[in-house]
Amino acid sequence: MKVLVVMGSKSDSHIAERVTKVLDEFGVDYDVEVASAHRNPEKVERLAKSEEYDVFIAIAGLSAALPGVIAAHTIKPVIGVPVSAKLGGLDALLSIAQMPPGVPVAAVGIDNGKNAALLTIEILALQNSELREKLMEYREKMRA
Amino acid sequence: MKVLVVMGSKSDSHIAERVTKVLDEFGVDYDVEVASAHRNPEKVERLAKSEEYDVFIAIAGLSAALPGVIAAHTIKPVIGVPVSAKLGGLDALLSIAQMPPGVPVAAVGIDNGKNAALLTIEILALQNSELREKLMEYREKMRA
Amino acid sequence: MKVLVVMGSKSDSHIAERVTKVLDEFGVDYDVEVASAHRNPEKVERLAKSEEYDVFIAIAGLSAALPGVIAAHTIKPVIGVPVSAKLGGLDALLSIAQMPPGVPVAAVGIDNGKNAALLTIEILALQNSELREKLMEYREKMRA
Amino acid sequence: MKVLVVMGSKSDSHIAERVTKVLDEFGVDYDVEVASAHRNPEKVERLAKSEEYDVFIAIAGLSAALPGVIAAHTIKPVIGVPVSAKLGGLDALLSIAQMPPGVPVAAVGIDNGKNAALLTIEILALQNSELREKLMEYREKMRA
Amino acid sequence: MKVLVVMGSKSDSHIAERVTKVLDEFGVDYDVEVASAHRNPEKVERLAKSEEYDVFIAIAGLSAALPGVIAAHTIKPVIGVPVSAKLGGLDALLSIAQMPPGVPVAAVGIDNGKNAALLTIEILALQNSELREKLMEYREKMRA
Amino acid sequence: MKVLVVMGSKSDSHIAERVTKVLDEFGVDYDVEVASAHRNPEKVERLAKSEEYDVFIAIAGLSAALPGVIAAHTIKPVIGVPVSAKLGGLDALLSIAQMPPGVPVAAVGIDNGKNAALLTIEILALQNSELREKLMEYREKMRA
Amino acid sequence: MKVLVVMGSKSDSHIAERVTKVLDEFGVDYDVEVASAHRNPEKVERLAKSEEYDVFIAIAGLSAALPGVIAAHTIKPVIGVPVSAKLGGLDALLSIAQMPPGVPVAAVGIDNGKNAALLTIEILALQNSELREKLMEYREKMRA
Amino acid sequence: MKVLVVMGSKSDSHIAERVTKVLDEFGVDYDVEVASAHRNPEKVERLAKSEEYDVFIAIAGLSAALPGVIAAHTIKPVIGVPVSAKLGGLDALLSIAQMPPGVPVAAVGIDNGKNAALLTIEILALQNSELREKLMEYREKMRA
Repeated sequence: MKVLVVMGSKSDSHIAERVTKVLDEFGVDYDVEVASAHRNPEKVERLAKSEEYDVFIAIAGLSAALPGVIAAHTIKPVIGVPVSAKLGGLDALLSIAQMPPGVPVAAVGIDNGKNAALLTIEILALQNSELREKLMEYREKMRA
Repeated sequence: MKVLVVMGSKSDSHIAERVTKVLDEFGVDYDVEVASAHRNPEKVERLAKSEEYDVFIAIAGLSAALPGVIAAHTIKPVIGVPVSAKLGGLDALLSIAQMPPGVPVAAVGIDNGKNAALLTIEILALQNSELREKLMEYREKMRA
Repeated sequence: MKVLVVMGSKSDSHIAERVTKVLDEFGVDYDVEVASAHRNPEKVERLAKSEEYDVFIAIAGLSAALPGVIAAHTIKPVIGVPVSAKLGGLDALLSIAQMPPGVPVAAVGIDNGKNAALLTIEILALQNSELREKLMEYREKMRA
Repeated sequence: MKVLVVMGSKSDSHIAERVTKVLDEFGVDYDVEVASAHRNPEKVERLAKSEEYDVFIAIAGLSAALPGVIAAHTIKPVIGVPVSAKLGGLDALLSIAQMPPGVPVAAVGIDNGKNAALLTIEILALQNSELREKLMEYREKMRA
Repeated sequence: MKVLVVMGSKSDSHIAERVTKVLDEFGVDYDVEVASAHRNPEKVERLAKSEEYDVFIAIAGLSAALPGVIAAHTIKPVIGVPVSAKLGGLDALLSIAQMPPGVPVAAVGIDNGKNAALLTIEILALQNSELREKLMEYREKMRA
Repeated sequence: MKVLVVMGSKSDSHIAERVTKVLDEFGVDYDVEVASAHRNPEKVERLAKSEEYDVFIAIAGLSAALPGVIAAHTIKPVIGVPVSAKLGGLDALLSIAQMPPGVPVAAVGIDNGKNAALLTIEILALQNSELREKLMEYREKMRA
Repeated sequence: MKVLVVMGSKSDSHIAERVTKVLDEFGVDYDVEVASAHRNPEKVERLAKSEEYDVFIAIAGLSAALPGVIAAHTIKPVIGVPVSAKLGGLDALLSIAQMPPGVPVAAVGIDNGKNAALLTIEILALQNSELREKLMEYREKMRA
Repeated sequence: MKVLVVMGSKSDSHIAERVTKVLDEFGVDYDVEVASAHRNPEKVERLAKSEEYDVFIAIAGLSAALPGVIAAHTIKPVIGVPVSAKLGGLDALLSIAQMPPGVPVAAVGIDNGKNAALLTIEILALQNSELREKLMEYREKMRA
């Protein structure tokens, strides 16, 4: 089980860190890449088609095509994190959430890298009882 | 593997049908329930805590608390479908997408029940090679 | 007569203080709690079902389910205060205001803890002539 | 105990009917008036200052000043119902919700006359055990 | 010819100064008042009914009822200046612009006190050739 | 005293009729023209520079440059009426209201031709006692 | 000189027709294709890389990645037409306009296929005097 | 081949610099002017009618009429750059993008002067093989 965390621009790395911090905490294996759907579509396509990853977390601001473009090249779950670069991130949220019927992306909240990681872990936990237990502990701690 | 499709109100059933049509097409087992997070929170909690389901698809309009309330009671993936009841569905989209850090919901597009089903299938396909094949065929047909 | 002031996150405490400052000024008894509808729904439910409180003031940002979830568990008046965490608070305002028919929440303005307290006092003053007089004095002072 | 239901324009009467239908169901006494804050401010002021009413429900679209203007002349609770005349009712919702600190209005959802009535009844039920019982029955029925 | 510049709160005085700076420049006589439509409606009404003023400039943020309430009490032109207190001023702009048919307010841009003053001068210049000449000079200077 | 009512497109004529109906009612002289700021700027400029008119009412949808372009060529008051062609008229409202400091336009509400006419009459009434009386009668009738 | 008109979905064909009607009128050669950036990215890439076309007109609703994805694969001008499928087309407009620095797309208005065609012709006319003359005639006719 | 970069106000010069930096990098000849569509329409018209320029880049905030007014006076391509002065630049984006059918403007993203320059170069490159090569190198560098 491995996750790809990909951001559209190096300027999104503060959001990527919120993702990897949680993945580290849960001991989930991952790679991190910078690849823009618009500036480097070949790299995005190559990453999306990699058989290595179970879940993709794509972080992008503005027109935020990255999660959708990845989703176009894989049948693995793709989670999109809209980044607040302009308009408070409303542009990125709409771009990520409003995917056309047929190619789904799972949108989390604006700048909410933490929830992208947790959603990923919930997905991976369906086939991993250790992750399930860690998730339950994590939830338990939040309650305290 | 079983999915719960839950809508906040009977008036959301046209969206639920878009979900179940795709689940049927892929032969995924599911239950359908009507349960409002505000009018019947006990039922929502009971459903959310059921061990029977692997993925939850929650359909709701307006303040659309349903997906988040389910997510609060489970560590299984929860997919939220915002319904366009007022303001073109912007209210529901923001309510579903803007979850606080710690409890994730996967938002799909406004009224986009089809993508909620496909995202569910992508998640289930991680541990089911038959679903993976069907997904690849499905994508192939879309291309034609 | 007692009020519960509950915030979804400790980071909302600057708004809670605007509430309690006014309640103190009017000599209204209250408790303050931190309880997230998503991270600690059991606590929220327990608080909402307490017979001790006449009015609930629920403070929350983002998808801001807290006021609605409290309202789902009580027939006492629930006042929601949207907090400007993202998108200037528009997300929280819509989540709080756009409740489905059947379970009301009284929304006040974004970050407007003061008005949540004053609305509470107006409600309590219906059965308390001393509060009515204080409210009239308060209004009188605002005019000066 | 008596409620004033006031609408800014005769064209809002379909929303006023949603209010009065619920008030009738609960046996709450009320008057209905048409009075525009802009076209007939004297009437609005006279109504707002009437000692006869315990709660005001003010229904208005567009710039929707009615609830706020009533609130300016009373210390009784004022509930505002935004009407979707333009922009899906976002204009009216913001006008009603974004009251300045000092003079509260309780906003309910766009076109949501039903919740304005129920919120009123919750307020009145604080001093009326019969209304409390009816509210609990009403909630019970919603669950079914 | 005299203008009343009225702001809903002392915190709007930086916008009022943009107005009076231009009125001073053109030698137009004016008074400045602080009067909230919600906190001090009697004062607002008294000012609006004064025969002394030819044009009213009303400055307000949030639900921004001030220009409309003045317009309700006068048949003199009322110019409203929305202030960016929350949501970038969109709430105030909609409240001021979306007046109901029958009682007009002239909205200028968010925080745009300068244009409120210039619009006032254009109105007064219809019956004052000196102001017309000054306006033409002012425009000429802007071109340079 | 004469008014120019100019619309950006023939498709705006239903709004122009709301304007002229009120001007007729008050016996105010006017011309009506169709002239697009983008398709026929020369005509717009020529009309704007005409000495014949005291007030301009400019009706436009979408990017709605018409009122601003007229204002650029005259020091007479210009009233802009945003038309709801797309996005509920929000685009036109922002284009008309958000004029840069230096060249004012008076924005009225979306599709609110009636208020454009009444604002015009309020302006003209400053120098016409007969119009003042008619306005007072008009207001009186609205109250009834 | 040849133009590619590509729409993301067959349901956008009413907008494509507005484009081709104008291209026909000016005698500009073009092809029309249906190709979704999400459902058929290979086809989109192949079309974008074709040496045959001078200008691309890409029509898409919702998250509207099509124009940006084409732009990622070509250095020819790409014009994006947002379609009003949800939220009045605001989602598509933001997706198309808010491209990241480095890969430009030229956004025209929502559903405004006509302007996409005219912008294309203006671009082609830079190297074609016949098109320039036709454009001048076209403008002349609009003035009449 | 020459480009005119025109900004509506000196305060937009930080955006103009993003444009000229890229034009310099590609060795494209240009002039820079400050000219407001509202404060100095004659200058704007004169510039727009100049035969000297092949492409116009117009930078403006607020109601942002500049690109449209230039487009009204030329059949050369006009690129509009919305500036975030108020409301995060949404007002300027809508004003620039929502041009009426018949007179096109090419909108780029909010504050995105870089893309305005690159779009210009893509247009000019259609008739200049050296620019085409430089564009391909530029793209190649972005990939690295």
